[in-house]
Amino acid sequence: MKFPDATSAEIDQAMLSAAEAFTVFRKNNLRERAVYLRTIAAHLDRRKDVLIETAHRETHLDKDRLDVEWTRTLFQLRSYADACEQGAWLDIRIDTAVNQEPRQPDLRKMLVPLGPVVVFGASNFPFAYSTAGGDTACALAAGCPVILKAHPAHAETSEGVAEAVRTAAAECGLPEGIFTHLHGASFDVGKVLVEHSLTAAVGFTGSLEGGRALADLAAARERPIPVFAEMGSINPVFLLPTELARNTGALAEKLAISITQSAGQFCTNPGVLVAIEGPALESFREALAFRIAGVAPAEMLHPGIAKNFQHRRADVLEREGVSVVGTLSCPVGRNESIPTLAEVAADKFLADKSLRGEVFGPFSLLVRCRDAAQMQAVAESLDGQLTCTLIATPDEAGAQPALLDALQRSCGRFIFNGVPTGVRVALAMHHGGPYPATTDSRFTAVGADGIRRFARPVCYQDFPESLLPPELADANALGLWRTINGQLTQEATSPE
Amino acid sequence: MKFPDATSAEIDQAMLSAAEAFTVFRKNNLRERAVYLRTIAAHLDRRKDVLIETAHRETHLDKDRLDVEWTRTLFQLRSYADACEQGAWLDIRIDTAVNQEPRQPDLRKMLVPLGPVVVFGASNFPFAYSTAGGDTACALAAGCPVILKAHPAHAETSEGVAEAVRTAAAECGLPEGIFTHLHGASFDVGKVLVEHSLTAAVGFTGSLEGGRALADLAAARERPIPVFAEMGSINPVFLLPTELARNTGALAEKLAISITQSAGQFCTNPGVLVAIEGPALESFREALAFRIAGVAPAEMLHPGIAKNFQHRRADVLEREGVSVVGTLSCPVGRNESIPTLAEVAADKFLADKSLRGEVFGPFSLLVRCRDAAQMQAVAESLDGQLTCTLIATPDEAGAQPALLDALQRSCGRFIFNGVPTGVRVALAMHHGGPYPATTDSRFTAVGADGIRRFARPVCYQDFPESLLPPELADANALGLWRTINGQLTQEATSPE
Repeated sequence: MKFPDATSAEIDQAMLSAAEAFTVFRKNNLRERAVYLRTIAAHLDRRKDVLIETAHRETHLDKDRLDVEWTRTLFQLRSYADACEQGAWLDIRIDTAVNQEPRQPDLRKMLVPLGPVVVFGASNFPFAYSTAGGDTACALAAGCPVILKAHPAHAETSEGVAEAVRTAAAECGLPEGIFTHLHGASFDVGKVLVEHSLTAAVGFTGSLEGGRALADLAAARERPIPVFAEMGSINPVFLLPTELARNTGALAEKLAISITQSAGQFCTNPGVLVAIEGPALESFREALAFRIAGVAPAEMLHPGIAKNFQHRRADVLEREGVSVVGTLSCPVGRNESIPTLAEVAADKFLADKSLRGEVFGPFSLLVRCRDAAQMQAVAESLDGQLTCTLIATPDEAGAQPALLDALQRSCGRFIFNGVPTGVRVALAMHHGGPYPATTDSRFTAVGADGIRRFARPVCYQDFPESLLPPELADANALGLWRTINGQLTQEATSPE
Repeated sequence: MKFPDATSAEIDQAMLSAAEAFTVFRKNNLRERAVYLRTIAAHLDRRKDVLIETAHRETHLDKDRLDVEWTRTLFQLRSYADACEQGAWLDIRIDTAVNQEPRQPDLRKMLVPLGPVVVFGASNFPFAYSTAGGDTACALAAGCPVILKAHPAHAETSEGVAEAVRTAAAECGLPEGIFTHLHGASFDVGKVLVEHSLTAAVGFTGSLEGGRALADLAAARERPIPVFAEMGSINPVFLLPTELARNTGALAEKLAISITQSAGQFCTNPGVLVAIEGPALESFREALAFRIAGVAPAEMLHPGIAKNFQHRRADVLEREGVSVVGTLSCPVGRNESIPTLAEVAADKFLADKSLRGEVFGPFSLLVRCRDAAQMQAVAESLDGQLTCTLIATPDEAGAQPALLDALQRSCGRFIFNGVPTGVRVALAMHHGGPYPATTDSRFTAVGADGIRRFARPVCYQDFPESLLPPELADANALGLWRTINGQLTQEATSPE
C-alpha cells in the first residue's frame, strides 16, 4: 500500500505531540491563529494546479467542480481567520462586582479551546471538508491542534494539502504537533483515535453508519467527548401546486442539476420530492425525468461509494409501489453512477420506513400525494434533515402554517424556492440538523459559528487585572464586542 | 407510599401532552414566555411560608438557608424572563443576499426550542435546582415544555411548587402539557423518561453515577439526545505561601464555613485543599481544624446521602497515609454529618486515584506538598472540576503561569482569593466544567446562558419577509441585537 495505516504507536506519538503543542497554541492570541490560517491559504494557493490534478485523478470529480471547491476552501480559511480575530465567537460576558452585602463577585467569561481535535477527511470534498477544510480551520481558529485522518480515497491529495499546512506552521513558528497527518483505511485507526485519552473532540463528515459508530465509541469512553458528525440526509423538497404550475420547466431544470451534479455526491442532495397529484405534477414529472435520463453516467468517488449507490438504488426500486420514471438506457461502467428519478404513492412512502433512508448519489424519489393532508403526513413522518425546501408562492405557503412548522422542526436549514445543494459559507449558515442528519443539532459544520464546536466557556472570578487574559481585561485593547452587565458594548469596563 | 411512582402509562401520557403543548408553546413569542416565568414567580411568592416550612421538614436544611435559596429561585425566574425577552440568547445572524454570479442567498439564523425537556429535581436544592429551578426556567424560556421528576426526598415541597407552576400556566392561557409533575423514587421512572421517543433533552443535577447512567441511556437511544448532567466535583483550593502566611486566620475561617455550611451539601464544596509545607501551612491547618471540629453535626438531606457520606468518609480515612486533623469528638445521629478535615502527603494523593473522588458533605482533604513542583503535579493530576480556586497574592500567582494554566484547564470557573461555594446568578457565570464535573462542559447550569442548552439554530434561506419569524424580519420590531453581514446592530435590515 502506498500510504500504510498509522500504527497505534504512531497515533500515540501524534496525540502526545498534539497535547504538547496545545499547551503553547491555546495561549497564542487571536491574531496569531488568524495569521496561521491565512498562511495555510497562501501555501495552498501555490500548490493549486498540482493538487487539483491529483484530486481529479483520485476522486473523478471534474476540474471545474474542484476549482469551485478550491476557492471555497481558501475562502473558509480566510473568512474563519477574520472571524477568529474579530472574536465575537468568544461570547464574552462580564458582570462586575456588586459591593453590597452579600457581595457579588466580579465574573468574566469567554470561550477557551477544548484540546486536540481529531478530524476525519470526507470522501466527497477532498479540499473543503478534508485536510485543510472546515473542521480543521474551525479547530485551529478555536486554538486546538488537529490530528487529521486522511480519507483513503484521496490520500495523495491529502498528503499534498498537509504539506502546505505543516509548512505554514513552521513559517509561523508553531510547534510541529499543531497538525499531524495520518492515514487509515481501516476503521481501527479511527477507533484508536476517538478512544485516545488525549483526544478532546472529533469532527467527521460521512455516512450515518460511520458517524454513529464514532459517536458511540466517544460516548462509551471513561471521559466522553463530543463528536460532531455530519451524516447527510434526504433533503426533501416540497412542491406546492400553484408555484409548480407557474414555473414547471425552470423547476425541473434546477432540480435535475441539483440531483445529478457531481454524480449527486453531496450531503444536501435532494433525495425526495413531494408533490400533490394534478396536471402540474404530471408536466413536472415528465420534464424532470427527461432531464435526468439525459445526464451521462459518471465515475463515482470510489468503488465503495459506487457499490453502495447501486445497492441502495436497487433496494429502493424493488420496494413495493416504487417505479422508475426516468433513468439511463445505456450500460454504465462498474464504478459509475446511474442518474435516476423514481416515484411512489405517498401511502406506500408512509408505510415503508426504508424509503426514508439516504441513497447517496444522483437519485431522487418523487412522492405523489393525494392532497394537502397527505403531504402534511409526509412532512410529519420525516427524520431529522440537514435541509428542507419549500417550493411555493408566498401566498400558498402562508396558507399552510402547519406544513411550514413540520418542515422547520425537522431541519437545520429551511429553503424557500431554491435547491438544497450549494451551501453558502457565511456566519448565518447552519449546516447541521436533528439526528440522523448530525449527532449534535446545536452546532454547524459550515460558517464561522463552527469555531464554537471546539471551545468551552471558562469564568474568571475576582481575578486581578494583571492576571486576566487580554480579552477579558478592563481596557479591551482588542476592541472586542463584550456583554458587560447585560449590555453589548465595545467600550472598556469600568468596575463599580 | 404517599406519592407513588409514575407508571409507564402516566409517563407516556405526560410526554404526549408535552409534545402537543410544544406545537403551541414553541411559537409563543418571547414576551409571552417571559410573562409565564414572572407569573410562576408571583404564584410561588404567595406560597413562600408554607413551602419553606415543608422543605425544612423534608430536607433538614435550615430556614435561613432555605430563605436565601427561595430568593435565588425567584431571582432566576425573573432574570431569565428578562433575558428571554431581551433575546440575545437567540444568537441571530443575518447575511443578506449577494446578487452577483454566483448568487449568494439571503440567510437568517436564530435559535429555536428543542422540544419536551425532562428535568430531574436535585436533592440539595429543593427550590433553586428542582421543580421551578434553573433547568425548568431555562427550558421554558427556550420554549420547551417541562416534564419534572420530583426528587423523592422533597416530594411534598415539589408538589407545592408544581401547583404554582401549573396555576401560572392556566392563568397565562397555556396548555396543561407545558408542565407535568411526576414522582419516581425508582431509577426506572428516570430510565423510561430519558428513553421516551418524545423526550428532546434532559437536565439533571446529582451524583456522578446517576448522571452518567442517564447520559449512557440517552447516547444509546435510536435518536440520541443531549443530557446536561451537573454531577459535582472536589473543587480544589490551591493556597500559595505568601497569601497563606499573610491571611491565615481569615482564610481558615472563610474555608471552614465554605466546607461545613448546609452540612457541606453543595456541588461546589471545597473537597481538597492544596498547600506547601511550611510554618504558614502549620498555622492554617491548626486554625482550620479547630474551626471544623467546632461545627455541630447536622441532619443530612436524606438517609441515602448520610449513608453515602459516612461510607465515603470512612473509605478515604482508611486509605494509606490519610489521617484526621480535626473532627467532632461527640457522637452523631444516624443521618447526621460529621464535619471533618483530613490530611495526606502529596505523594500519596498522587498515587491513589480514589482520593480524587468526591465526598459529598462537610469533608475536606488537605494535601501537603513538598514544594511548588509537587503542587504543580497535583494540579496536573486533577479530573474536570466545576471550580478551581487559587489563594495567592497577585505577584506570587503571576510568577506561576504553569499552575494557573493547569487549573484553568481543569475547571469551568476559576476563582481568585475566594471560596467556591456561593454561585452568583449572572450571565457571566459558568456553572459547568470538564467531565466528570458535567456531561457537557460547553453549557452552564446557572445564568441565562443556560437557556441555550435547550435550543438549536435554524437557518431560513431566501424566505419572503411575510413568512419570517418576527425576530428575523427586516423591520426588527423587537429591537433585538442581530449580527447583520458581520456587524452587530439593533437596526433594521436593509437588503442589498
